[in-house]
Amino acid sequence: MLLENNLNEAKEGKRITAKGYAVGSKSDNFKPFEFSRHSMGENDILIEILYAGICHSDIHAARSEWRDGIYPMVPGHEIAGQVVAVGSKVTKFKVGDYAGVGCMVNSCGECEPCKISHEHFCERGFVSTYNDKDYFHNDEVTYGGYSNNIVVSEKFAVTVPKDAPLEKVAPLLCAGITTYSPLKFTGIKKGDIVGVAGFGGLGSMAVKYAIQMGADVYVFARNENKKKEALEMGAKDLFSSTKDVKIRFDFIVSTIPTGYNVNDYIDLLKYGGEMAIVGLPPTDAKQTIDFTRLIFSAGRKVYGSIIGGIKETQEMLDFSLKHKHLRQFE
Amino acid sequence: MLLENNLNEAKEGKRITAKGYAVGSKSDNFKPFEFSRHSMGENDILIEILYAGICHSDIHAARSEWRDGIYPMVPGHEIAGQVVAVGSKVTKFKVGDYAGVGCMVNSCGECEPCKISHEHFCERGFVSTYNDKDYFHNDEVTYGGYSNNIVVSEKFAVTVPKDAPLEKVAPLLCAGITTYSPLKFTGIKKGDIVGVAGFGGLGSMAVKYAIQMGADVYVFARNENKKKEALEMGAKDLFSSTKDVKIRFDFIVSTIPTGYNVNDYIDLLKYGGEMAIVGLPPTDAKQTIDFTRLIFSAGRKVYGSIIGGIKETQEMLDFSLKHKHLRQFE
Repeated sequence: MLLENNLNEAKEGKRITAKGYAVGSKSDNFKPFEFSRHSMGENDILIEILYAGICHSDIHAARSEWRDGIYPMVPGHEIAGQVVAVGSKVTKFKVGDYAGVGCMVNSCGECEPCKISHEHFCERGFVSTYNDKDYFHNDEVTYGGYSNNIVVSEKFAVTVPKDAPLEKVAPLLCAGITTYSPLKFTGIKKGDIVGVAGFGGLGSMAVKYAIQMGADVYVFARNENKKKEALEMGAKDLFSSTKDVKIRFDFIVSTIPTGYNVNDYIDLLKYGGEMAIVGLPPTDAKQTIDFTRLIFSAGRKVYGSIIGGIKETQEMLDFSLKHKHLRQFE
Repeated sequence: MLLENNLNEAKEGKRITAKGYAVGSKSDNFKPFEFSRHSMGENDILIEILYAGICHSDIHAARSEWRDGIYPMVPGHEIAGQVVAVGSKVTKFKVGDYAGVGCMVNSCGECEPCKISHEHFCERGFVSTYNDKDYFHNDEVTYGGYSNNIVVSEKFAVTVPKDAPLEKVAPLLCAGITTYSPLKFTGIKKGDIVGVAGFGGLGSMAVKYAIQMGADVYVFARNENKKKEALEMGAKDLFSSTKDVKIRFDFIVSTIPTGYNVNDYIDLLKYGGEMAIVGLPPTDAKQTIDFTRLIFSAGRKVYGSIIGGIKETQEMLDFSLKHKHLRQFE
């Protein structure tokens, strides 16, 4: 019924009514929330949301742990669904196709990073899927995937084949790309020794991708009880502390979302090894890298990584679907 | 006269008497200081010190700015001189040769890093030229180059050709290798855009090497008055602040010895660019890298670098002497 309304709204160029779940403040619980999305542009598609992942970022954002949130807030940036309407100039999708949306719904499209599909580095700033102001639509607030539909530029939607397990595609659109991207950036290859710190949604994806790329993978997680799961996934071992670990790593990716000592991990890298930080602890954890220790751990590189561009997101999704034995698809 | 004594001491297997300048505490001035060095081993050489560079590290150490120093302290780790005696098994030097000594006078020689001439990463710890305890000689305190002679294992001395300007060789043995090593590690090549932050002894060496390697070099220094010098050296420009700098860099090396905001520099890197930190501010500057900014500057790598191994130090010296137009040799 709602969908039928939406189809009429799309046809008539009206705003698209939507229902979702929102928090009204940083300490609120989720409550049903009715709102509307901007009308369909000629390059936009309307997606009926069938699945939305829950990411730790949603919690960080809803609780204003990174910066003050915009309330009411409808989180959700791991969105999978079906295209129910398309703008007149849309070429990538037709009605009935599956589509996915991640952390971004738009970017300037004109800067150098945008031109090479590094929209996540857009010099004007990309438009976040929620908790942001959309500069293409009079700065109206964006609402995410904890809702029944979304209107998005086709450029910012990835194509999903009809035989894909749609419920498993959703979380890939943040957790997948966030871990896939640094593994590719560092260039993980067969035989590399890879450490994955933090073994939640992101960590488990990192383990799967790294194994698929041929690496020997070790997990760092506080909870020893997760060892069975890690080993089943193909990891060589799970350590509950960096202390006494003798292995030296080509690459470590940290997905840890809370305060910890990153230098302890940098010290575990081989000379020339790299560490990618993708977990962003709350601002009040005042997370830092100690300079002196970094200098004495000379020749170990550390960098941050944050999601990925749309082109790479599509590549990640294709990679994930191709390698069906990624546990996501067991 | 003193030299004659030393030659006799060497011949007779006695301890080598030495004269130097020492500070007696972290707030002391330099005063003449007489001491002795361990007797010559079969692999040792005795060098009459003709030149010693003064490095900011000497100040950090003498003032206990990194850790509590061992007093009396004779600093100096940029040493150039002439070999006046050699042990029975010495093959690399003969009496009369020129030789140089940098920050290290020994290392375990048995660990993996030592085996590939990464003595600066010796797992037991290398023996510093001064302000250290020499585990090969009953933990006796080491004294550096602000003195008239030094006894050192031939492995830890670099060869210097007789036509080299010896007074200009000395500072290369720390300032040279410390900046040469990260430029090589990152792999600077023709056309790269390189930033050099801090324009003292190390910074000026970094500028020269980077230009020699074919890079376009920009200097960051608080003092605008140094611009003339930087331009004469071949730099494209000097900036007194990171603010408003539009250039994006393939590589930045920071030689800054005081507190500053390193994230401001990381933000100036290109995607995939690298920053090496070689300047180590005093511990109480509590220098750190902000995590959140590192993540949002995604794909920019930062690493520490600290001197270099003996093999690379020799390579650096050969490179410096070969390219005589490095201003060091004008």
